[in-house]
Parts: sequence; structure tokens; C-alpha cells
Amino acid sequence: MSKDLDQLAISTIRLLSVDQVDAAQSGHPGAPLGLAPAAHAVWKRMRFNPKNTDWINRDRFILSNGHGCALLYSLLFLYGYDLSIQDLKQFRQLGSKTPGHPEAHDVPGVEVTTGPLGQGISNAVGLAIAQKQFAATYNKPDFTLSDSFVYVFLGDGCLMEGISSEASSLAGHLQLNNLIAFWDDNRISIDGDTNVAFTEDVVARYKAYGWHTIEIAHGDTDLDAVSKAVDEAKAIPDKPTLIRLTTTIGFGSLQQGTHGVHGAALKSDDVRQLKEKFGFNPDEHFAVPNEVKDYFHEHVKENQKIETEWNKTLASYVEKYPKEGKELQRRLSGKLPDGWKDALPSYKPSDKAAATLLPELIGGSADLTGSNLTKGADQAEFNLLQTVWVNSVVVTSDTVLENMFPAAYQSAIESTSTPHVIALTRQGVPHLEGSSIENASKGGYTLIKQDKPDVIIVSSGSEVSISRDAIAHLEKAGIKAGLVSLPDFHTFDKQPQSYRLSVLPDGVPILSVEVLSRFGWSKYSHEQFGLDHFGASGKAPDIYKWVEFTPEGVADRAAKTVQFYKGKPVLSPLNTAF
Amino acid sequence: MSKDLDQLAISTIRLLSVDQVDAAQSGHPGAPLGLAPAAHAVWKRMRFNPKNTDWINRDRFILSNGHGCALLYSLLFLYGYDLSIQDLKQFRQLGSKTPGHPEAHDVPGVEVTTGPLGQGISNAVGLAIAQKQFAATYNKPDFTLSDSFVYVFLGDGCLMEGISSEASSLAGHLQLNNLIAFWDDNRISIDGDTNVAFTEDVVARYKAYGWHTIEIAHGDTDLDAVSKAVDEAKAIPDKPTLIRLTTTIGFGSLQQGTHGVHGAALKSDDVRQLKEKFGFNPDEHFAVPNEVKDYFHEHVKENQKIETEWNKTLASYVEKYPKEGKELQRRLSGKLPDGWKDALPSYKPSDKAAATLLPELIGGSADLTGSNLTKGADQAEFNLLQTVWVNSVVVTSDTVLENMFPAAYQSAIESTSTPHVIALTRQGVPHLEGSSIENASKGGYTLIKQDKPDVIIVSSGSEVSISRDAIAHLEKAGIKAGLVSLPDFHTFDKQPQSYRLSVLPDGVPILSVEVLSRFGWSKYSHEQFGLDHFGASGKAPDIYKWVEFTPEGVADRAAKTVQFYKGKPVLSPLNTAF
Repeated sequence: MSKDLDQLAISTIRLLSVDQVDAAQSGHPGAPLGLAPAAHAVWKRMRFNPKNTDWINRDRFILSNGHGCALLYSLLFLYGYDLSIQDLKQFRQLGSKTPGHPEAHDVPGVEVTTGPLGQGISNAVGLAIAQKQFAATYNKPDFTLSDSFVYVFLGDGCLMEGISSEASSLAGHLQLNNLIAFWDDNRISIDGDTNVAFTEDVVARYKAYGWHTIEIAHGDTDLDAVSKAVDEAKAIPDKPTLIRLTTTIGFGSLQQGTHGVHGAALKSDDVRQLKEKFGFNPDEHFAVPNEVKDYFHEHVKENQKIETEWNKTLASYVEKYPKEGKELQRRLSGKLPDGWKDALPSYKPSDKAAATLLPELIGGSADLTGSNLTKGADQAEFNLLQTVWVNSVVVTSDTVLENMFPAAYQSAIESTSTPHVIALTRQGVPHLEGSSIENASKGGYTLIKQDKPDVIIVSSGSEVSISRDAIAHLEKAGIKAGLVSLPDFHTFDKQPQSYRLSVLPDGVPILSVEVLSRFGWSKYSHEQFGLDHFGASGKAPDIYKWVEFTPEGVADRAAKTVQFYKGKPVLSPLNTAF
Repeated sequence: MSKDLDQLAISTIRLLSVDQVDAAQSGHPGAPLGLAPAAHAVWKRMRFNPKNTDWINRDRFILSNGHGCALLYSLLFLYGYDLSIQDLKQFRQLGSKTPGHPEAHDVPGVEVTTGPLGQGISNAVGLAIAQKQFAATYNKPDFTLSDSFVYVFLGDGCLMEGISSEASSLAGHLQLNNLIAFWDDNRISIDGDTNVAFTEDVVARYKAYGWHTIEIAHGDTDLDAVSKAVDEAKAIPDKPTLIRLTTTIGFGSLQQGTHGVHGAALKSDDVRQLKEKFGFNPDEHFAVPNEVKDYFHEHVKENQKIETEWNKTLASYVEKYPKEGKELQRRLSGKLPDGWKDALPSYKPSDKAAATLLPELIGGSADLTGSNLTKGADQAEFNLLQTVWVNSVVVTSDTVLENMFPAAYQSAIESTSTPHVIALTRQGVPHLEGSSIENASKGGYTLIKQDKPDVIIVSSGSEVSISRDAIAHLEKAGIKAGLVSLPDFHTFDKQPQSYRLSVLPDGVPILSVEVLSRFGWSKYSHEQFGLDHFGASGKAPDIYKWVEFTPEGVADRAAKTVQFYKGKPVLSPLNTAF
């Protein structure tokens, strides 16, 4: 590719980005104008197939400064991803494939949803870990199935965020040499020169994290330097690389180098002079010169050949290593192992931890492995052992497995579209009759069923057993109380109304019992028992007594609930007008 | 003070800490055993008066690794703060002054509540900023009213937290040479050696932030080195200091240097041998040798003299600089300026921003000064100008002042015990008749009162004006709807029940309208209109239309609410059983 063609391609990327912002009359033109040369030089080096965005050994590109997404959309369009010129024209419009920040869910080729600064670089560390584990598990001396790289562009704002510090420290610790980050050092933030708030020595900080660092003084023009930096970074055996790329925000604009180009459309005369400056027709919008079109088309064809080769390699691999090959094919298909569900434990502490059943699980513990029991006996630490990557790693909490909610675990594992948080109590809790994976999978279920109850107590977690004991107290006082465990509002809300009304029916006053909060429980109950103040430090039984979260305390509130609703018609809170 | 007496004092601090954990049979003995020598050496150098913990020019000590609080309680007790040996014996018991993590609210001498790692060092940066502003505002060439230091102890966990990275970068940027932090480099975390997760070069990282750094190799024994490090740090003119203090966690314990001493009481034979090793009677608990008692007593007397001198200086200052003196006395008393409330604007954009009225306000903007309008015209940036510190700094948002809720601002300013978050819409909103500081101060109020309404709509923020327009639609359909603005649940909950029931009465179905969420609104309404999914990217009017948050969409839900409750008795959701 000639230098002139490179320049033309870069100008095309710049102007496509400017035209998007111009069409929307909102967005961020500064970053695309400054970063187009580096983006072009990096994408030229990347391996990917726009027609198969799931190819496992593709290189990943993440725009951590996601507000500059017009740049990414321009690249995706030019490289032939499923994004049309029409989509570019719909930039930042409702329902378009080109939203104001890149959404992995909506846009093919967007690897990670970004926007909140610092998030992209942190997700990139996660992707780099996944690639490392893949390589350690499946590469053989005679087969390299995984050798891809993760490229990240990030801005000053990303570097200011604590989350990127945490992730970058970990990346250095794990020696993720497959991670190559470009810091767009344009010295400009919304509040003006970065000197107003951010004067640390970023390069020295990343060195301290154990990263390799490279500085490119002329990021606006020096394509060779970018190319060489990528070579250098790829050759470093045991460190991630941060490339400090000095650029001019809004390169070419009349306001270049100022925060005026950061977050608003350029004025129309500015757009015109930009196009003229780059040798384009100022009256044309979304222009792509034919030679640029052809170049990108050729590049994609080359890349597709690489994937074809890789597929052949995989086929030979499966033949030579059938055991690993079969397991790898299962993982790539996203299927869970046969029978994994049947092997889930049912409340006996001696049962096997699920990580053994699902060797692809990677877990973490915030320096609380012992406290939270997050490591199984046959699991290894995820770390570099010389150059050998361990095969599989943890996590789940034994507390989940031994007690009430293996259902939560199952739901988390089976879900392909949502993250899960499983909130566990640190207190030991008894196993309750009536709790089962099947019941808990519905989000909420009746634990103690009564014929014509005077009141139903609805609760979750460690408060369920307190409520159960309260019911015995109530019985002595001649009050018949039912008990519902409702560990997961979200899943319960998805059940049919008939099921939900069978759990929380009309005609019975309902009392919710949760220490942490009354907030939100009004949706499922008429009365709420919970704290409206901070907790305290002390022994657990003392504290429970202090806040009256005892069988007696719960029974008292239940009795008052019965009294209050006596003679009043009671509608289930699940009945709604629309 | 002789070296022997120093050693005896240190042993006393160590064993008082161990005895606390032993009495509770829970807590963290490792950090106090390792940090006692450095703590002793630092506290010897600090200026403070245990009998006047509010003295403005005192040095501050913050234990960022708050789990090691037995150390802090030992020091507070020995220095004669309002903490008795009886309090130490109640360590970690409910209602005691010695909770499991230090609480500024409960314990005199605890400057900052700590526990969540990274929080203490971050708060310390805030305190150091406050001291700098005080000094810049009131010191004169012939009067030094403010020259105190902030000392922080922190552990590896604090350094791993992103929040400490953010704060430490800012501290370097602001050249806070009044901040001296000791990193307890004991190489041990709960999961074992810090090498398992944390191998960055911390000292190099802090250098990169612009900090001065000092390394003390023998933190267990080398008191002179600690003392000299404090001298060196105090003399640095333009940098905060990080002192890397290499210590042995659980020094003296049979398990010293392992994570076994981190977070559980020592075994009884271990406690006995510790006491013997330090020359104490193994059968005695909470022992304080008389010479140690006397030493601390003398030290406090010396310190009190320093405060007495300072008070004299202040008196002379007030005489020589009556204007500044008077203003300073007002600030120290915690009183707001006379008439500040009357000067609050009432909806005219030209009105003065409140920061001018309250020059002691310090504010921040997350690099969004322009977007959020957080800077008034006559306000200066907080930064080092050569060595001159600017006099006053921002902040409030003009949006607050120009529109509905100066009441929120007033509430935040007048509160002495709670932080405030004021959540503002970025959309322009009309000024509504009936909104006033007085009404909004109640947290919720009736905006449109109807005689026997068919339905009441309750809403907040930008949805209130949409709801108002919905009411006009409903009127055409023969439905009489009232309107309530409820911007602050917390404040509304504190109003008398009679007032609350006048706003949300019995007998009328109530519909809440908030885009962001239905969650929580059940407490104030029978029906909820709000999103249960993510938002989208697009133009605001398109999005509002898409989610049906239009006058028509709200009117539709209100009409359905009226229909659903027709003929059913309706109780206000504010009526509760207990």
C-alpha cells in the first residue's frame, strides 16, 4: 500500500467520522480526527473476518474512549462489517446501529460496550486473560490455535479512573503480553488542558505496573512509528505494552488542539475547510474514494484467508488430539457439558464443586479466598508458572453449593445474556424443607403453605429461617401464617401471573422481612419489616436482637399486620392496572 | 525519652491491642503488632489535644487499614482521649466505643471512619486539601495559623483499590506536602503472600504521581528511621510523601509473618509467650506500666501547651486582622453567614451563585465543568499558583439555582451530619407554579390540588412537567387528576403523618411516574409507570416518545389506574400496620 493511499484512507476515515457527527449535529469529532492515523495503522495489522465476527482467534479492538465511536463506525463500515453508509447517516439516532457510544449488543464488530471511561481498558484485560487461558489450555508444541492480540485505544479520562488502575496493575502482574494499549495523549480534556487536574507521569506509572512502554512523538503523521511500535509490543515476551501516542485532538479543524472540538459538531465552514484541506469535495458527504474502497476490500480478503488456514489447523488438531479437540469444540459451541446439571450438589458439603464440572470457568476472589470459601480442593491458582498457564480455575462459593440456592448458580451458568450477582450471607443458615433447585429457579416460592392463612411472610436469605421460627410463635397465638422465600425479584417477575398469585394471593395481608432494607419490598407486600438506619459492630446474635430480627420480633410485626388489615379487603400487590 | 521507655511503650501498645482481640476472640492482631513501633514514633511527633479533639490546627492521624483499629484504640486510650480501659475490654461488642472498624461518629479522636480499604487514604487527601485552603486563606507573613499535617497508615489492600489511585494522583497534582503516608509493607494479604496478586512497584507508582518517597527497611525496630523520615517528609516543599515501611505482620507472635495472624485472635499460648517475650506478666491483661502512663501524660501536657500558644496567636490575629479574624471565627463556629438563605436565588438565571455567599465551599467537577455548569463567573480554580493558594472555590450547579430545587441546596448546606447527593436532569425543564423552597423542603408537596380527584399522579424532576401536561389531557376525558412532586423520599418520610396523608390521602388511587425506575415507588403509590429495561441512544424527544413518557402516555396509564380501582376501597400506601 502506497503512502498516498494510506493518507487517502486516513482522510476518508476522518471525514466519514466528521460527517456522522455533522449529520447528527452532536457527538465527538475530536478523537476520531486525532486517532484516525493510528487506528488505520493498527487495523492494517489486525487479523479478523468481518463476515465471521465470532472467529475465536481474531484480534480484538476496543475503543475505551467510547465517545469517539464515529471513528470505530467508520472503520467497521470500510472493512465491510454489517454496517452500511445508511447506518452511518443515522449516527446517534434512536434505534440505529450507530448509537452515541458503541454497544456490543447492537453493532457487529463492537467487541465491548464502552462509554464509562476506564471500562474498555478493564474489559480488555479480561479478554487478554481469556486468550491466555485458551492458549495455555489448547496450544501444543506443534499447534498454535490461539495467538491473538487485544488492542485498546484509551484517553486521559480512562487513565484517571481508578478501575483502570486496578485492571492495569493486574495486567502487569499476569504478564499479559497479548495486550497492546494506545494512550491518546492529546493533552485536552473537557475542562481544557489536562494540566488543570492530571499531571502525573503516566508512562512511569505503567512501568511501575510492569508494563512495557513506547512513546510516539508524532502520532498525527508517523504511521511507521505506530507500525514499529506494534511489532515491538508483539515481541515483548512477558509484559503488556502501553504506547503513548502524542496526537492533536481535532486534527485539521480550525479549532484543532482545543477542547472546542471534543464534544460538539464542528461548524459547517470548519467541515468545508477540512474536506478541502484533505482534498475532498466540500459539497459531498460520506464520500469514499474507489481506491480506498478497493484497498479495504482486498485487505479483508487476505484476512479471510488467514481464518480459512486456521480452520484447517483446527481440523488437524481435532484429528491428532481428539480428547482436547472434542472439549474445545464443545466450548466453542457455547454448550455446557452433558449432565453437568445432574451433577450439581444437593446440600451435602462433600459434593463436588461445580468448577470441576466446568473447567472453562475462571474466577476471582478479592483477597478473601479463605473467608468466602471460593476455592475448591482440586482447583489451581491462575498465574504465570514460568511460561505454563494453568489449565482451569475456580470459582463458586461452597456456601451456594451447600445451602439454599444451587438454582442461582445454575441460572448464572446457563445465562448467555446477563451478568449475575449472587449475594450470600456469611452467617450459617439451616437447610429448609421445601427449598429445591426447581422452586428456587422461579425466583420465589411457597415454603410453608397454609389453608386460608391470616398472613403471609415473604423473605429471603438468612431471614427466611428466622421467619419460619416466627411462624411457630404465631401459631401459639392462634395466628396462621404462610411463608414465602423470594430470593430473586427479577426471575419471579418473569413467572406467569397465575403462578405469582398462587404464591402471593389476593385476600391475605403480606409482610416482608429483610434486615437490609424495606426499599422495593412494597411491590410484593403490604407491610415491610427492615432497617431504615445503619447497622452496628458486634456479635451477630446481639445485633439481631438489637434490631429485633428475632422470631419474636418478626411475630410481633406479623400480628400487627393481621390486626391492621382485619375487616379490610386486601388485594395482592401483584395486581396492577396496566 | 529513653530507648528503653520507647520500647516499653511500644510493647504496651502491642499487648493492649492483642488483649482487645483476645477479649473479643475476634479482630485483627497482625497489623497492630507490626505497626506499633511506627505508630509510637509518629504519635510522639504529632500535635493534638485529647481534651479538645476539634482544635483546628491539630495533626490528623488516619488508619486507612481500619481493621487494625485495636492499635488506634490503644493509642487513644494511652494518650488520654475519652476512651477507658473498660472500653478496650468491650472491643467489637455491640454499642461499645471500640467497634470492629473505627467510627468517627462514635469514638473521640477517630478522625475518619475507615474499613473499606482505600477509603482512609482518600479521605486523608481531602483533609490535606482543607488544611491547604485554610492556610492559603488565613495565614499571613507574620501569622501561621495553619501548619498541621495529615498522617496516614495504609496497607496493601488500600493500594490495590482504584479509589486510592485516583486520590493519590490528585494529591501529587495538588502538591500536598502536608500529607505523609506510611505503607505497611508486610508482604501478607488474606490470600497469603502479596505476590499472588500484587507485584507492581508501588514506590515507583507513587513517584509517578509526583510524591516524594522514602524506604524504611527495618520498620519493626528502627524508630530513628521513622523519626527521620517524618522530618524529611515535613521538609519537602511541594510533594506528599509515601514512606514504605517494611514490617513483620504479627511481630512477636508464634505465627509472625504469616496470614495466620491477620484476622483472628491469637491462641492463648501465643498470647502468653508474647507477653513473656516483651517482659510482661502473662497472667495480666490490659496492663499499663506506670512509667508508660506517666510518659503519655507528660506528652499530652506538652501538647496542650502548644494549643494554648496557638489560641494566643489566634487572639492577636483577630486583633490585627479583624475582617479575616471575624470571618475565620464564623467558620470555626460552624455557623453560616447571616442572611445567606435570603440571598438564595428564586429562579432568575441572573441571580448570584451561592458559592459567593459561602466562600468556604470547595467543589469539584469530574472534567465536566462546562457540561454541568458547575463554575460561577466569579470563582477561581483550586490549584497551586506558584505557592499561592486561591482563596475560594466553587460549587453548585446553576441548574439547581435556576430551577426547581434551591431547597435541596439549602438542605445540603445546613446539614451537619449527612452527605447529600443532588441528582439533576440535563434536560431543560420549565418552572412550575407552586414549587417553592418552602414546599420542596418537605421532600414532597402537592403541585395541583383537586377537590375529590379521581387519581393523583406523583412524580419528580423532569417528569413532573410531563405529568402536568397529562393532567390537561385527562381533564378533556373527564378525569380529575391531582399532581404531587416528590423529589426526596428521605425528607418526605420525616414529615408528620398528617402532612404526608394530606399529600397522598386515602380514597384516591395514586400513580407514580418516573422514567428511570418503578423500584421503590410502591411505597408512595398504587401503580407505577417507569422503565424496566435499559434506555437507548438518540434525541431526547424521540426517546421520550419511544418509552411513551409523553403527556398522552402518562394520561393513558392514569386512566387505566382510575378504571382499575373503580369501586374498590383505596387505602393510602402511607398507612402502615407498625
